[in-house]
Amino acid sequence: MPSYFTSSPGKVILFGEHAVVYGKVATAGSLGLRSYALIQTREDKKIEVNLPDVQLARSWNINDVPRQARWEGYPYPPQSMNTDLLAQLTKFVDLGSQTNRSQAAIALLYLHSFLTTDETLVRGYDFVVRSNLPVGAGLGSSASYSVCVATALLQLNGYLSAGKGLDVAAQRDLVNQWAFQAEKVIHGNPSGIDNTVSTLGGAVMFRKGEKIEPLPGFQSLRFLLTNTRVPRETQVQVANVRKLHDKFPTVVNPMLDAINEISNSCKDIFSQDGLDRAHLLARFGELVDVNHGLLAALGVSHPSLEKVREISSKLGLKSKLTGAGGGGCALTLIRDDVSSETVVVVKQLLEAEGFQCMETSVGGPGAGILTLTHPTTIAEFLAHEKSYFEATQNWAYFV
Amino acid sequence: MPSYFTSSPGKVILFGEHAVVYGKVATAGSLGLRSYALIQTREDKKIEVNLPDVQLARSWNINDVPRQARWEGYPYPPQSMNTDLLAQLTKFVDLGSQTNRSQAAIALLYLHSFLTTDETLVRGYDFVVRSNLPVGAGLGSSASYSVCVATALLQLNGYLSAGKGLDVAAQRDLVNQWAFQAEKVIHGNPSGIDNTVSTLGGAVMFRKGEKIEPLPGFQSLRFLLTNTRVPRETQVQVANVRKLHDKFPTVVNPMLDAINEISNSCKDIFSQDGLDRAHLLARFGELVDVNHGLLAALGVSHPSLEKVREISSKLGLKSKLTGAGGGGCALTLIRDDVSSETVVVVKQLLEAEGFQCMETSVGGPGAGILTLTHPTTIAEFLAHEKSYFEATQNWAYFV
Repeated sequence: MPSYFTSSPGKVILFGEHAVVYGKVATAGSLGLRSYALIQTREDKKIEVNLPDVQLARSWNINDVPRQARWEGYPYPPQSMNTDLLAQLTKFVDLGSQTNRSQAAIALLYLHSFLTTDETLVRGYDFVVRSNLPVGAGLGSSASYSVCVATALLQLNGYLSAGKGLDVAAQRDLVNQWAFQAEKVIHGNPSGIDNTVSTLGGAVMFRKGEKIEPLPGFQSLRFLLTNTRVPRETQVQVANVRKLHDKFPTVVNPMLDAINEISNSCKDIFSQDGLDRAHLLARFGELVDVNHGLLAALGVSHPSLEKVREISSKLGLKSKLTGAGGGGCALTLIRDDVSSETVVVVKQLLEAEGFQCMETSVGGPGAGILTLTHPTTIAEFLAHEKSYFEATQNWAYFV
Repeated sequence: MPSYFTSSPGKVILFGEHAVVYGKVATAGSLGLRSYALIQTREDKKIEVNLPDVQLARSWNINDVPRQARWEGYPYPPQSMNTDLLAQLTKFVDLGSQTNRSQAAIALLYLHSFLTTDETLVRGYDFVVRSNLPVGAGLGSSASYSVCVATALLQLNGYLSAGKGLDVAAQRDLVNQWAFQAEKVIHGNPSGIDNTVSTLGGAVMFRKGEKIEPLPGFQSLRFLLTNTRVPRETQVQVANVRKLHDKFPTVVNPMLDAINEISNSCKDIFSQDGLDRAHLLARFGELVDVNHGLLAALGVSHPSLEKVREISSKLGLKSKLTGAGGGGCALTLIRDDVSSETVVVVKQLLEAEGFQCMETSVGGPGAGILTLTHPTTIAEFLAHEKSYFEATQNWAYFV
């Protein structure tokens, strides 16, 4: 009775938010906060789904779920979305169409309907996901979910087994492409950055309309991630930058060029021979400072984000907003020489402002699979401390 | 017994500080805070000098002060400084060489030694200056003093009289050139911006090594000027920007380009047909915001300056640091529609932080002369309320 954990990280934008809208290069990295899934076969032809983060616990007869015939290019996904199937699934799950809960269920069943083999169909399966990622904070929680779904269904149905003859890069690509399908179900028109970072791990550089490239030589970095709890207003911020750009194009265009060159300078730092870790972190911190300053100059900061900067800079730490700004999250770089006492003090000061702080890293591994030697139960999976999954050593990653 | 007041404004940088070091355009304007001088002949062949702002009160026999022979180009100043004369004067005033007091006295006597005519020599004169400008705050207090000195000595000795046949532009040029000589005495290697703004008034655009040009169509603007009382560290800030530039030239150069274009956009605003005053002020405020953001991104802000921004932005007002940063002063634009109550509240909040606030304007007139119908005394001049000079209506400006 096959039983697997799958795991995948969230993402943060390191450099280049907003400028990316204008065709500039941006840099994103995988976040130490991850989602974890359990998938295992059952013997009663049911799909038992439990997604506590969106309060979904449902069971379906597996043969009731609409299925897809094979397509050209199988097992890689078709070029275009099957909107008929989406409509059928929306009706089938009957949870409305705009809720996180409904979108999570439809994304799962959309992939299920393409990927489930006859062997799985006669048995059924459990599917459970829990996440350390806050939902709706711009940290790629939906992509992390999508990658967990894709990895789990591909693994359970044997697409990633040695017998299929795919090398690691091809397996990774297969996971990423299906995760992108799930993201399309959830978001309509995603950029593909979030699922790619979640699948690959590490850090990537990307530019609108171009291939997403891993950032060579990237080293994992420690960060304090602060959620200001001020709601992001992505569309409002993007529109405000557009207005400023249209009013003062000769001023704003070189600012966007400067942001572009921050990503390129970041790449240079990691590929620079002989730059020791301490100097690398100092340089990286300077880029953090400059990029935040440019974003603030574009008008997308917020008093809460400036408060994070004020508090962390008093203790010698560099912070920037990450994502659209106007609220949302800030990243504070924790250099290797920063004492644990300093981190405790910064966290306390930030939490005293009502912010939520998480110590985490950027640049860790992407999607992973853990093959369980004997099956577990949904209740057991849900009962584990969050640290349990991280402490487990036997994860296989697509590297 | 001829008796005159002279008057000249301080200056603020509106846009372009730091970028100007890299050959970019900057914008400066005359400040509503001014210096006022009294000059009038005596009958005892003494120079009676009183400069309360630098605690100087001295009297010299006029014939004891070293004098200069005429030179080619008279009455415009010689191309190079007379270092022998400077050394003689430094010895003559005997106040050390590095103090404000000594530099003020030497600058006065340097101009005196070139400009005093035989007619003045047989009589002597009083010379008194008082200023509303804080000294050493980056507001051009020394240039304002230098322009007062130049205007006073040129006027007392008849160089500006109708009989000399100089038109207004030539008179203004004469004042500015001599004020620049005084600035050289005080600063060694001044840029010439401060004395030009103080002489011309209004606003100017300038670029290193190029002619300083009046900003056409500039309209006077109200500002709250906040002195954070944190000492400026001009050299440190300039050096820090240089370091950042040298580490990340591809990032910093477009930031400097953006700052360059802020001055050009400011020029566009004032020359744009059909832009009403409310829209003009809104646009100007956006440029204030963006320029401050870019300066902060270059690392030259300071917690005290960010505090000014935080407080003023809560009341909907736009602020930026002015000058080198790292402390010093901030400018807060007071749009025409801002109520006096709002200004009072902002001032109170800023003063509660220990800052010094002055309501003022930018873009007022430059050097002026008031011919007194009967002489006054030094004591009377010093006893006037500061508002006395502004309330007097009969100033003649070089316009």
